[in-house]
Amino acid sequence: MLYTFSDVLKKINNEVNTLKFEGKPESLFAPIDYILELGGKRVRPVLAVMAYNLYKDDIEKSIPIALGIEIFHNFTLLHDDLMDRADKRRGKPTVHIKWDDNTAVLSGDAMLIESYKEIAKTDPQYLPEVLSLFSTTATEICCGQQLDMEFEKRLDVSIAEYLEMIRLKTAVLLGCALKCGALAAGSSQEDAESLYDFGINIGLAFQLMDDLLDVYGDPATFGKRIGGDILCNKKTFLQITALQHEDSKDQLLDWINKIDFDETEKIKAVTSIYDELNLKQTSADIIHAYYEKGIAYLDLVSVDYAKKKELRELAKSLLTRDS
Amino acid sequence: MLYTFSDVLKKINNEVNTLKFEGKPESLFAPIDYILELGGKRVRPVLAVMAYNLYKDDIEKSIPIALGIEIFHNFTLLHDDLMDRADKRRGKPTVHIKWDDNTAVLSGDAMLIESYKEIAKTDPQYLPEVLSLFSTTATEICCGQQLDMEFEKRLDVSIAEYLEMIRLKTAVLLGCALKCGALAAGSSQEDAESLYDFGINIGLAFQLMDDLLDVYGDPATFGKRIGGDILCNKKTFLQITALQHEDSKDQLLDWINKIDFDETEKIKAVTSIYDELNLKQTSADIIHAYYEKGIAYLDLVSVDYAKKKELRELAKSLLTRDS
Repeated sequence: MLYTFSDVLKKINNEVNTLKFEGKPESLFAPIDYILELGGKRVRPVLAVMAYNLYKDDIEKSIPIALGIEIFHNFTLLHDDLMDRADKRRGKPTVHIKWDDNTAVLSGDAMLIESYKEIAKTDPQYLPEVLSLFSTTATEICCGQQLDMEFEKRLDVSIAEYLEMIRLKTAVLLGCALKCGALAAGSSQEDAESLYDFGINIGLAFQLMDDLLDVYGDPATFGKRIGGDILCNKKTFLQITALQHEDSKDQLLDWINKIDFDETEKIKAVTSIYDELNLKQTSADIIHAYYEKGIAYLDLVSVDYAKKKELRELAKSLLTRDS
Repeated sequence: MLYTFSDVLKKINNEVNTLKFEGKPESLFAPIDYILELGGKRVRPVLAVMAYNLYKDDIEKSIPIALGIEIFHNFTLLHDDLMDRADKRRGKPTVHIKWDDNTAVLSGDAMLIESYKEIAKTDPQYLPEVLSLFSTTATEICCGQQLDMEFEKRLDVSIAEYLEMIRLKTAVLLGCALKCGALAAGSSQEDAESLYDFGINIGLAFQLMDDLLDVYGDPATFGKRIGGDILCNKKTFLQITALQHEDSKDQLLDWINKIDFDETEKIKAVTSIYDELNLKQTSADIIHAYYEKGIAYLDLVSVDYAKKKELRELAKSLLTRDS
């Protein structure tokens, strides 16, 4: 049977909630429970289970892969927040704030190991392939984070460099989730590859959508303050594109380099630079192009069109979301 | 054929030296090459290969496990040095000093992933078991480091707690190396378990020997300054034992709590507290007891006595070393 997106999400949320890392010493494991309980969209584990479900009905067997990928994703958030000195995650104190830096380092390490423990539960027949893709992806995500940190110190990042960074930091894990789910269900290599490429393109669109919502989202539903990226001069598609326009570059650089400023004023001014360049539309067009490219890969997957409906709708919902 | 300890060590050093993590971004991978090039005794990978060689001659096949364990060990050093704010490792600047804290976090993460990539090369037939032991051990080592950090803030650590901490932080990886090597060669469960217990006991003896050498080692051959542990009030078997003697406790606490002191004087004074309690002999006796217990487990391993000669001598050399 084909499970709906909401069935799978409910299942994943249940599974994540029953994970309890209650070992001793408590200070090592409590942060793992804490960050996993902060919630999130659970997009990656849902994709893994839905890809598996394209081929097989016994989705229980795909749960360890899904959980491994979700634990891994939360490990990257934990260590990234430490490296970025972020105080909040989903409105709550980050682990290094609630505990301390050393706890964040070591609990993160323990989480990375836990993610491998879940992946290791994969059917031995498919384990070598799934494990290999998982590790390759994990390394890519480290590369993405390193590039992201390096880009923060530069003002000449090209759009191509930026897209490669978000491919590594965000998109590959969506691709990996889909491909691992498919492989664990015994899919063909071609299908697994198409699902991976579907994930990459949806992932790129997803991250570009994040950049867009941070400036143009609806304050009532966005959940975070609109303009957060502008205030901290975060490299986004919008900022990088604006820096490449000779007429807006200096004006934007002025705001980036200002140390004392009124926050509302900076958000308003930078947004109007983006407005003048019509970047809301440019972004939306690029997001739509990646979405279409992703769907074209999904179309290549050799299962009934009807079976792919839930994945198609999930992709669409990620890119028409308002938070 | 039975490879000698020095054959295996040469082989391992060659293999470690040909590992090159030269990916992009360079700042992510260069620290991995750096820490692996700092050297070390390579005890753990040698144990893995020697355990394999008890059963099979084609030791090439055990190299990935050996490398995975050595990379993992160096990952723990990298992150531990960061958490302990250690400036030097084998006489060279630590990664967070040579680069920065974020590089140490992220390169360490990448190294942990690399260690899994090596372990993943295990013969698929033995992979689930080897992978499971590797992950269990990795978690135990995180627990050991967390306990170690917690103990630094306490003055009432019992000897039993200390021994459990060093079991987790040091001994289990020696046991894991031996057991993984044996399992990958198709050994019986009983033999794999005996080799694990041999490793645990030799590992405990090895760490207690470290504590002992730091105070009573020969300055000419020790490599580090004698008394380093005393200067930084490190929890060691010697300190914990002395703190349990009512007549030496207050005197030792005075030195531990002193902020301004002459280094040579502190080392001399604390060493003479240990001398009065005859702790050099007590330590040596306990080390010898663990060594004997380890050898008893090695004797249980059902291969020819002659085949176990090299492992026996390696164990002996670790506990009669002077550096």
